[in-house]
Amino acid sequence: MTPALPPLAVSLGDPAGVGPELIAAVWARRKALALPPFAVVGGAGVLAAAAERRGIALPVARLESLADADAAFDRALPVLGDADAAYTPAKAGAEGARLALASLERGTALALTGEASGLVTMPVAKAALAQIGFTHPGQTEFLAHACGLGDKDAVMMLAGPSLRAVPVTIHCALAEVPRLLTTAMIAAKGRTVAEALARDFGIASPRIAVCGLNPHAGEQGRMGREDADIIAPAVAALVAEGIAATGPHPADALFSPRARNTYDAALAMYHDQALIPVKALDFDEGVNVTLGLPIVRTSPDHGTAFDIAGKGIADESASIAAIRMAGAIAARRRHKPAS
Amino acid sequence: MTPALPPLAVSLGDPAGVGPELIAAVWARRKALALPPFAVVGGAGVLAAAAERRGIALPVARLESLADADAAFDRALPVLGDADAAYTPAKAGAEGARLALASLERGTALALTGEASGLVTMPVAKAALAQIGFTHPGQTEFLAHACGLGDKDAVMMLAGPSLRAVPVTIHCALAEVPRLLTTAMIAAKGRTVAEALARDFGIASPRIAVCGLNPHAGEQGRMGREDADIIAPAVAALVAEGIAATGPHPADALFSPRARNTYDAALAMYHDQALIPVKALDFDEGVNVTLGLPIVRTSPDHGTAFDIAGKGIADESASIAAIRMAGAIAARRRHKPAS
Repeated sequence: MTPALPPLAVSLGDPAGVGPELIAAVWARRKALALPPFAVVGGAGVLAAAAERRGIALPVARLESLADADAAFDRALPVLGDADAAYTPAKAGAEGARLALASLERGTALALTGEASGLVTMPVAKAALAQIGFTHPGQTEFLAHACGLGDKDAVMMLAGPSLRAVPVTIHCALAEVPRLLTTAMIAAKGRTVAEALARDFGIASPRIAVCGLNPHAGEQGRMGREDADIIAPAVAALVAEGIAATGPHPADALFSPRARNTYDAALAMYHDQALIPVKALDFDEGVNVTLGLPIVRTSPDHGTAFDIAGKGIADESASIAAIRMAGAIAARRRHKPAS
Repeated sequence: MTPALPPLAVSLGDPAGVGPELIAAVWARRKALALPPFAVVGGAGVLAAAAERRGIALPVARLESLADADAAFDRALPVLGDADAAYTPAKAGAEGARLALASLERGTALALTGEASGLVTMPVAKAALAQIGFTHPGQTEFLAHACGLGDKDAVMMLAGPSLRAVPVTIHCALAEVPRLLTTAMIAAKGRTVAEALARDFGIASPRIAVCGLNPHAGEQGRMGREDADIIAPAVAALVAEGIAATGPHPADALFSPRARNTYDAALAMYHDQALIPVKALDFDEGVNVTLGLPIVRTSPDHGTAFDIAGKGIADESASIAAIRMAGAIAARRRHKPAS
């Protein structure tokens, strides 16, 4: 019999955001949902206070080693280490940012050593992190760096029950998108997505639908040349490598129910082209999963939501989905290691 | 008692597309769905052949005047005039384009005189129309011209059960969008949308959510200046006129179920930003409704679908929705005429 998978590590996120209360809400449903065991890195006091504010009875088990998490998980929320802060919902600051960063750093280390089978990150406040000297644009780039990779090797996929979508360009002005897109970049992302769908999602022959950039995918060049000149050659390159890629497709029709049945992931050319359909269809269950890393990493696809933090109304569905997906990917990687 | 509303006129669209069979399928369901009476302009032979191919028993009543349509509608599909062509599904050509254009022209005239209470246009083949000398980019621009207006006065709204969305720019390359957007253009479209929601959709105090152009609506200028410099002043101008406009909003979050409850229409900055969510959520029921015209005009939000024409599988839901919406708008305009 295979030994049990190590537990997942969950980084706290900004303690003033919705992260702590969502972790408590997820733990409270662990049995009904048969969730894989997880431990939070730091923030025992924050978690207890956030749970109390939300009306959740949350026993906390402070651990020094992740190896003790499995035994504790059934009766208490395992919390690793002493790092902590005051619980001040909606009021971000340097103390909270330091806790969020310490949690992320230790969680990453645990995933890299294999003590944790994967890392689930709760949302951080980028502005607060920047003020304490964090120089990465976001957690994903931090993780790529920690894994010894470049920013572009970490590929963000948004995955919900209805749709998986990957934006080729992400956090840049829309006006920059046409000049940033290259055939090599699109093909590289497509390759990473195909590998991840096979390795992490168990899809033997992944089908990738590539979006056009322009309306109607340019209509034979009548509305922009990028579809024909930049995107189509990337699709051809992927096909030449044996990947079942199609497109460029008119993006507006690609997310209808019938169209979604024809592919396993959509490769979008820019942020909103990927995120609009995922959030329209799967808003409360969207998971941000990072492809291309040696470690397993997922995250609920929402931010700190300071406007509702501490009010007891933040929805834990995306956090549940993120933990489930991390557990499922970790299990698949163990049974079928990367080639 | 108010006299009955005149019937709707339906233009045939390209006879080689799915239009004729969809009209037959809609008429066959007229009683169960309590549809408003309509008459097709031309194409009696095409309609009969398309219905037969689809297995629909379709008696056709040829009329010389639309005034006779109401009496005939219950027992037969009223068809106005003798214009006709051979039924050659999936094979577009000049003969079909001439019929489509004749149907569109006479349907428009009937709506302009008030003999028809509105016009529902079935999909045309733009390439075939261009070959016979049609110089407009599409039916919408033809209608604006026929109504004595400029192309930009006709505003395209996509409306489904889940969402109404209006793209400010439409058929242009994505790279051109940032330089085409102006504060005046956005405010003008917002004004037309607000007026139409009140007059045509019966929404006393319409709420308009305006999309940002860039990811996260630019994040305070970190990803593009257009949201702050061009879009925000348009929202302010609308608010100053007493219109309940908000934004610019991060577009990716604006189409979630909760967000959709906060507005009556979304004003999008480009084609796919409006059409991706409408087609993801309401693919088979999307209606293209033209705002800002003196006549009522709707259309199913799909093309000729030559790939499935004549195969009996085209879905008539969008055509049903287009006919219903035209009937509802016509009824509202009659009871509350434009100021």
